[in-house]
Amino acid sequence: MELVSIAEIRAAAENIGPVAVRTPVLPCLWADPDRPLWLKPENLQPIGSFKIRGAYTALSRLSEADRACGVVAYSSGNHAQAVAYAARAFGVPAVIVIEATAPAIKVEATRALGAEVVQVPLPERETAAAEIGRERGMTLIPPFDHPDVIAGQGTIGLEIVTDLPDVDLVLVPISGGGLASGIAAAVKALRPSAAVFGVEPEIAADTAAGFAAGERVHLPPEQRARTMADGLRAEPSELTFAHLRKLIDGVVTVTEDEILAAVGTLARRSHLVAEPSGAVTTAAYLNRAADLPAGRTVAVVSGGNIDPALFAKALQD
Amino acid sequence: MELVSIAEIRAAAENIGPVAVRTPVLPCLWADPDRPLWLKPENLQPIGSFKIRGAYTALSRLSEADRACGVVAYSSGNHAQAVAYAARAFGVPAVIVIEATAPAIKVEATRALGAEVVQVPLPERETAAAEIGRERGMTLIPPFDHPDVIAGQGTIGLEIVTDLPDVDLVLVPISGGGLASGIAAAVKALRPSAAVFGVEPEIAADTAAGFAAGERVHLPPEQRARTMADGLRAEPSELTFAHLRKLIDGVVTVTEDEILAAVGTLARRSHLVAEPSGAVTTAAYLNRAADLPAGRTVAVVSGGNIDPALFAKALQD
Repeated sequence: MELVSIAEIRAAAENIGPVAVRTPVLPCLWADPDRPLWLKPENLQPIGSFKIRGAYTALSRLSEADRACGVVAYSSGNHAQAVAYAARAFGVPAVIVIEATAPAIKVEATRALGAEVVQVPLPERETAAAEIGRERGMTLIPPFDHPDVIAGQGTIGLEIVTDLPDVDLVLVPISGGGLASGIAAAVKALRPSAAVFGVEPEIAADTAAGFAAGERVHLPPEQRARTMADGLRAEPSELTFAHLRKLIDGVVTVTEDEILAAVGTLARRSHLVAEPSGAVTTAAYLNRAADLPAGRTVAVVSGGNIDPALFAKALQD
Repeated sequence: MELVSIAEIRAAAENIGPVAVRTPVLPCLWADPDRPLWLKPENLQPIGSFKIRGAYTALSRLSEADRACGVVAYSSGNHAQAVAYAARAFGVPAVIVIEATAPAIKVEATRALGAEVVQVPLPERETAAAEIGRERGMTLIPPFDHPDVIAGQGTIGLEIVTDLPDVDLVLVPISGGGLASGIAAAVKALRPSAAVFGVEPEIAADTAAGFAAGERVHLPPEQRARTMADGLRAEPSELTFAHLRKLIDGVVTVTEDEILAAVGTLARRSHLVAEPSGAVTTAAYLNRAADLPAGRTVAVVSGGNIDPALFAKALQD
């Protein structure tokens, strides 16, 4: 299977300027001096997560004619807002299919970005989106299972190595694997000696299990749904799993308590509001030193869209 | 009186790279579309505030011999950590004079950066620092009343105009006035058509009163101490007031309730932990539109070192 190349990632980086913030790497004075830590704060993107990079890249690579017909996506989370925002930036229509049970606040956030929202029962999301695509001639933008989306997320890896050429270790959350695939493709091309580790919630660790088994392992959705890291409930596709197997050095897992504590640490010590999915890498840094290479470490903070009640709880810990 | 020049600010910008984060400007999707808003998140600096820029610049301009003897400062707040951090970066000793009543957490934070802390009664801080300087041959680094400090803070203005060449309005907190002086010097040199407004707490608005009177107005310290914006309790010096009178377009004030609500907005909508002093500009954007020019606006979020209990309260609002 052909993996995403550094050339594709460089091309994506040249395109995303108008919509994605070029986030800095933030040094952490509170880190262990023997393992200096920088944060890559993707929670500061306009929609609150890295997803804008992949969605915008995917839209930018459509033909002008196809793009003018609009795009469709299914998601209740960060990908929904990313596609809506990217479509608005291009001035083309977007339809987002969201499950009927999603919180009203997520539906409203997507509508506020100018997208049409269609609500269906959860199991029907994918087919409903495909049908809308066929009927209206709209292109489906997948959340991770596409080379253009992976290339877009890979721009984060490019920026990390540009800003910290002597980075030793990059920690990345793993869900569908698009983010980790893209970042690993960039980091391994530009600094092969740096390690890239994925991080998963212990109670939704399908990729860790897949690495142990040597092939993809499927966990029941209701099992994956148990983690508070609601952005980490997907599983890799064939495409992203191929990237991960080839490119990343390992996967570590963190507990729910460790994730919540890391949300608190990021707020108190680095002044960042992170969602649980974005805090897993900091949790791994703080609690899995023995399982990780030493050296100059970057933790990717993938997003900041946290439920206010959960955030308040994290601050109390 | 000679004001700080853009050449001095450019020279400072070339120096601070090793210690200060080059913060981006963050677009706010939640802003009024007719008055687009960007945040300049100085709360993301390693010590949690912009103060590192001025302190490091001041140290960098000492002669090597003077610098080797070390530096001294009096502050219980962000300037204390800034001087300690800058001294550590240069590998020279720092003594920070802190009032005996300061919270232990602030003393510890300063010690953790390698500085020696001397505690004295509040009214004796300044004289104690001067005495230590004389006795030990250490140079006093003032928090705002020095051209080098102003030039360092001015690098923020340089970065704003570089990143947003068509900015129309910059909102800056005013306390001692070093930050506003430096930013205004840079913005007015590079984009004279842009307005720069200062923001003060309504209950500690000495600069607003000074602008109305045409000269500096002194408010009693116990009056200034009432605001929760603990970084905005100082008053301009002759030097900074001269900059402000010449360079800024006006001063607006915000209430304590508006400040606290703005802390909540920054956390919920832009994923930033801001201290009250850093949130006054967002409070002004949200509540003083009628008193401010329209157009592309930047709010400087000067710092993030907020008391956890106060932050929890802001999130509940």
